[in-house]
Amino acid sequence: MTERIHASYWLETPIEPQRAADIIAGEQSSGTFLALANETPELKERSGARVERLEILDTVDVPSLPGRYKTGARFTRCLLDVSWPIANLGPSLPNLMATIAGNLFELQCVSGLRILDLRLPPSFAAAYPGPAFGIAGTRRMAGVPTGPLIGTIVKPSVGMNPAETAAEVRKLVAGGIDFVKDDELQADGPHCPFDERVRAVMREVRAGADRLGRKVMVAFNLTGELDDMKRRHDLVLAEGGTCVMVSLNSVGLVGLRELRRHSVLPIHAHRNGWGYLNRSPALGWEYAPWQKIWRLAGADHMHVNGIANKFSEPDETVIAAARAVLSPLWPDAPMTAMPVFSSGQTGLVAADTYQAVGSTDLIFAAGGGIFGHPDGVAAGVKALREAWDAAVAGVPIEEAARHRPALKAALGFW
Amino acid sequence: MTERIHASYWLETPIEPQRAADIIAGEQSSGTFLALANETPELKERSGARVERLEILDTVDVPSLPGRYKTGARFTRCLLDVSWPIANLGPSLPNLMATIAGNLFELQCVSGLRILDLRLPPSFAAAYPGPAFGIAGTRRMAGVPTGPLIGTIVKPSVGMNPAETAAEVRKLVAGGIDFVKDDELQADGPHCPFDERVRAVMREVRAGADRLGRKVMVAFNLTGELDDMKRRHDLVLAEGGTCVMVSLNSVGLVGLRELRRHSVLPIHAHRNGWGYLNRSPALGWEYAPWQKIWRLAGADHMHVNGIANKFSEPDETVIAAARAVLSPLWPDAPMTAMPVFSSGQTGLVAADTYQAVGSTDLIFAAGGGIFGHPDGVAAGVKALREAWDAAVAGVPIEEAARHRPALKAALGFW
Repeated sequence: MTERIHASYWLETPIEPQRAADIIAGEQSSGTFLALANETPELKERSGARVERLEILDTVDVPSLPGRYKTGARFTRCLLDVSWPIANLGPSLPNLMATIAGNLFELQCVSGLRILDLRLPPSFAAAYPGPAFGIAGTRRMAGVPTGPLIGTIVKPSVGMNPAETAAEVRKLVAGGIDFVKDDELQADGPHCPFDERVRAVMREVRAGADRLGRKVMVAFNLTGELDDMKRRHDLVLAEGGTCVMVSLNSVGLVGLRELRRHSVLPIHAHRNGWGYLNRSPALGWEYAPWQKIWRLAGADHMHVNGIANKFSEPDETVIAAARAVLSPLWPDAPMTAMPVFSSGQTGLVAADTYQAVGSTDLIFAAGGGIFGHPDGVAAGVKALREAWDAAVAGVPIEEAARHRPALKAALGFW
Repeated sequence: MTERIHASYWLETPIEPQRAADIIAGEQSSGTFLALANETPELKERSGARVERLEILDTVDVPSLPGRYKTGARFTRCLLDVSWPIANLGPSLPNLMATIAGNLFELQCVSGLRILDLRLPPSFAAAYPGPAFGIAGTRRMAGVPTGPLIGTIVKPSVGMNPAETAAEVRKLVAGGIDFVKDDELQADGPHCPFDERVRAVMREVRAGADRLGRKVMVAFNLTGELDDMKRRHDLVLAEGGTCVMVSLNSVGLVGLRELRRHSVLPIHAHRNGWGYLNRSPALGWEYAPWQKIWRLAGADHMHVNGIANKFSEPDETVIAAARAVLSPLWPDAPMTAMPVFSSGQTGLVAADTYQAVGSTDLIFAAGGGIFGHPDGVAAGVKALREAWDAAVAGVPIEEAARHRPALKAALGFW
């Protein structure tokens, strides 16, 4: 049991940085605010967290987060690596959360703290299953052996009944789409009950499969209490569905882990609420450590926003997130998931996305980018595929559009 | 189904506030970035979220959170109330999360967003159990009919083995403590396995009960995967234990809800990680709405930090948090939980705490405030009780200490 857990932080502190680092390591292991007689040197050596690295970046006059600071204090920013012996907690993701992201953000010696990365010992790979389907399984279930899965989200997010939802899906299936998902706001509301929606939508998907020879993958949002999620999963399966969707911040780690145990379908993991974990640059989580935890617990698809998205996120963190999702957790237990791009996506970002990610192992979900096409949904889907083909071939999109009417028409509205 | 869900936010926006409010309401219900042909007026009327109130507070030149803003933009701060028809989601806490706290913190029209409050319709009271024990049940199980439960946390947090932990608990039981909890870092690590720890500690608790006539309540931290939590709960029960503890942000809503279904013991809910949800004043969660969700799901005890705490939190939000935990959710379904005060607590804050909360229905956990007493643990516990008695009687602590040696000696080191 000599394995250690490593976490990296961006830290801003009003006190001497080494002292702040020691407080953080102490507070998250064997120390506390007061010196304790029974925190012996042996105990500390065995169970204490260690400051592995402390690199000063710069100092500022104004703290990033409010707190109880001495007047005239300066605030030092640094990179901090801390490690813990696995013997403190064992390979347990819920207890990992309390260890690396517990009572430390509110310490008085902290005027800013953000988790940048996480390195876990192999015992976690033995304790957790990772995604059951990942990229290969998703491609097999969706019948899309190469290229991105071209997808969309049923809109309006909420407000349509099951029959209206199914009518939208019918258009999408006829249009040649690969992947459709419920909005995260659509789960099992009285106006559009899950069971009815699944039955109505799957009728369209099965009818489409008879013609297409492949079943369009629909991620049905089964987010809810555990028994409901299991029952809904079973209904999707019985109806011939090939994917379920869950909101990670809604169900939590135990929710995803239990769904993974029960599920025989790929799990499309939605990150809604991510903003409150991430948007303050001086607080919370980077995506790299966060997505590792959910992949271990069993997420097959992880949302990463999109290049030139309609939210506040800059492209560089979108790209970093997608790369993180595609990076192996361990050489012999990669547990790779499929990144999901969405939010204002069109064919115009295909080349940049492909160049940044270096792969087509992704789901590329567009709404307006498909529905806005003057020649209809089928042309919208076709134009997206053509944009991606051009991106992979390294052909500029305007050039590719010359002899491709769907793409050409799409360039006018993207 | 005319019930509506109401959430209040502090919003800072670079655009015209009414427009920002409309975007938020649209994005979290039937709207999206683009106008949709099938978002009919009827659909919007039926399923759209409504802006119920928008009160401008002030404007600032610098945004609280980074984003893509026009140069020269001013940022307006306001209070925003939004409501949703229950028909969109039904009385489901996981789906409530996606609705009130989903993809809205990262909107481009948001330079700051914080959930201030939440008002849920009665159908949630019918759908969720709330705490099984709450205040009355906890008092009954702990054998403490009146006054605060005087408690402590086993320290060092991690590093002691089961026998060493039990030896600490023996001192506390002998000292007359009411309540003991594991640290949130201590769950089931290989160095201090849960089962061994529970067996060793409960031997001391049972032996103490033979002498005291009451069983000291020990909150064993069973945080982990679902089956492990259930098994650990059953062990605590079999050993005669009276409480289990769980880290909310570690297990998530489904974790707590499932534990609540299984448990026949009070659930001590730890909020570690709260800092990343709360510490940026322009982002995330206030405690009032957050604790409502966990109480509905079944938390009996909710941590609220403490007055004059060792963290960054000011007293006023600590007090607001404690009051929130003690406030009924509905008149006929109060679901009140017990607030847990901790972090650098001593008898010196008893009077302020009592005055602020107006109740002794609370757990008051002190570490150094007990262990630091020159005459030992028993005197430390006694001094805390005497400080609370004085607080309730409205007697100044120095006056009360005159004829109470334990309290008098405590004043020297608190």
